[in-house]
Amino acid sequence: MAEADFIERLRAIATHPGARGLNDDVAVLGDLVLTHDMIVEGVHFLANDPPAQIAWKLVAVNLSDLAAKGADPVAALMGYALTGDEDWDAAFADGLEEALAHFRLPLLGGDTVSMPAGAPRTLGLTAIGRASGIIPSRGGAMEGDAVFVTGVIGDAGLGLRIAQGELAGADVLLAAYRCPQPMLEAGRVLAPVVSAMMDVSDGLLIDAARMAKASGVGIAIDLDAVPLSAEALTLVGDDRKARLAAATAGDDYALLFTSSKPLPPIDCQATRIGSVTRGGALALYDSQGKIPLPDRLGWLHGQSVTFS
Amino acid sequence: MAEADFIERLRAIATHPGARGLNDDVAVLGDLVLTHDMIVEGVHFLANDPPAQIAWKLVAVNLSDLAAKGADPVAALMGYALTGDEDWDAAFADGLEEALAHFRLPLLGGDTVSMPAGAPRTLGLTAIGRASGIIPSRGGAMEGDAVFVTGVIGDAGLGLRIAQGELAGADVLLAAYRCPQPMLEAGRVLAPVVSAMMDVSDGLLIDAARMAKASGVGIAIDLDAVPLSAEALTLVGDDRKARLAAATAGDDYALLFTSSKPLPPIDCQATRIGSVTRGGALALYDSQGKIPLPDRLGWLHGQSVTFS
Repeated sequence: MAEADFIERLRAIATHPGARGLNDDVAVLGDLVLTHDMIVEGVHFLANDPPAQIAWKLVAVNLSDLAAKGADPVAALMGYALTGDEDWDAAFADGLEEALAHFRLPLLGGDTVSMPAGAPRTLGLTAIGRASGIIPSRGGAMEGDAVFVTGVIGDAGLGLRIAQGELAGADVLLAAYRCPQPMLEAGRVLAPVVSAMMDVSDGLLIDAARMAKASGVGIAIDLDAVPLSAEALTLVGDDRKARLAAATAGDDYALLFTSSKPLPPIDCQATRIGSVTRGGALALYDSQGKIPLPDRLGWLHGQSVTFS
Repeated sequence: MAEADFIERLRAIATHPGARGLNDDVAVLGDLVLTHDMIVEGVHFLANDPPAQIAWKLVAVNLSDLAAKGADPVAALMGYALTGDEDWDAAFADGLEEALAHFRLPLLGGDTVSMPAGAPRTLGLTAIGRASGIIPSRGGAMEGDAVFVTGVIGDAGLGLRIAQGELAGADVLLAAYRCPQPMLEAGRVLAPVVSAMMDVSDGLLIDAARMAKASGVGIAIDLDAVPLSAEALTLVGDDRKARLAAATAGDDYALLFTSSKPLPPIDCQATRIGSVTRGGALALYDSQGKIPLPDRLGWLHGQSVTFS
């Protein structure tokens, strides 16, 4: 049973409407929005990433799911695998405290376990949020809607390459990888006007493809319109290869959303990057015309994924 | 930072009243009761335990926390670490479906991650329950209350030894280890009449010591009164050594509670095993008088723990 088959099997089990068919970033229970994400050493973070920033990432990646549903953070439970390095644990706890304070997220409980020697650090967080109105799904995009993304795309992917020693670049890129910023305020303001919304965690293209599939529509993305940071442009230039790398890199934690309504002011940049079309899944173009989809649209749990 | 220090550090962070000082089995959010437990291969289960029964255990150990608070199961989120063995994953999914159906627990979401090669299987579950009245804590035991335990103690510890090939014994003992039964109905009925309640997961003595500490009282346990099963008595006899082994073995998932009120009828045996006293933490006696506490009162996350 490959991962996709296993998730399909879980989907057959998760028939409660609050599970949203396991097709959304979150589960819904009344006005509560629930998410549980794990991060694993060697998969979602590097063994030499600073522990305080891993704590930040654990909190932020879960809150990004709440942000995409316009929900306010209410509480968290943590599963923490001790691996015997007491300094590491202490630094993690410092970072956790800082992240929880920053997001005003109370830690309510959880579990610590001692792992067998040599096991990779494995951390889980359940974040609970509360929505004050509509809880947008991935599945509501309508033909004719515009497609938007918040912030910039691709900085975190470059930050990962910097952390791995493959590149040297601006600190802001490394920070985008290690300390992603969940777009909570933007998500809250946007939720009432979007037709679909999700966070970009595995790569803009793969996540856009998922939104298209969940909504039963096509999404056409103008690669030239995808917002790259000045630091990214300085480091890797502005050709198609650089833009495709950004759009498939993952870890952005931007919000991807569709809307046909005027957008309210939000606390970050929102850029129109395309349109919702009639079926046909994902399509990509730039000023020179249609672009063949790359083999790899993004990352899924550390594995290369091809969308089909 | 040792595990105890790390938990102390988390306790300083978890100041929200719903965290209950990280001293309870659960967190409380309005009428919701939340728990998150992880189980790890080689720590909480054996590599050769049947995957369907590991799925059962993952569900059951979390529901046991809800049972101890008198809460009804409402929903679960799962964190699942794939390790590349597709047959194992498929058998786990079958067991998960069976356990969720048995407990009428909807799976609402979660996360799957691919672990690095050779990593131990690491599974997390967040269970959400709803309480209909008082949510008993560990900390309410009052001097003069009687101390009770549901079911029998020590079967699971013998079952572990059977699973490890150290002993041969009745199937019911192995089943107690592999398929613990959360006492949901008993917990629901008992919640209004107990002063304190918790589940026995790490060992009767260590868990009773925790209840005594949380309540600021002493608990005196009559070792002769601790209920052992007929199968356990047949296998290991009824001497003090066998009773101490049972009372420190863990994995029982019985309910330990204190009360000064008449008990309502419940769907299982409840046995009075001692009394709440004025301070002095845990004390142990039998028909021959006071018994020195053993060095090891129970198990904590696979490690031997001495209560102090």
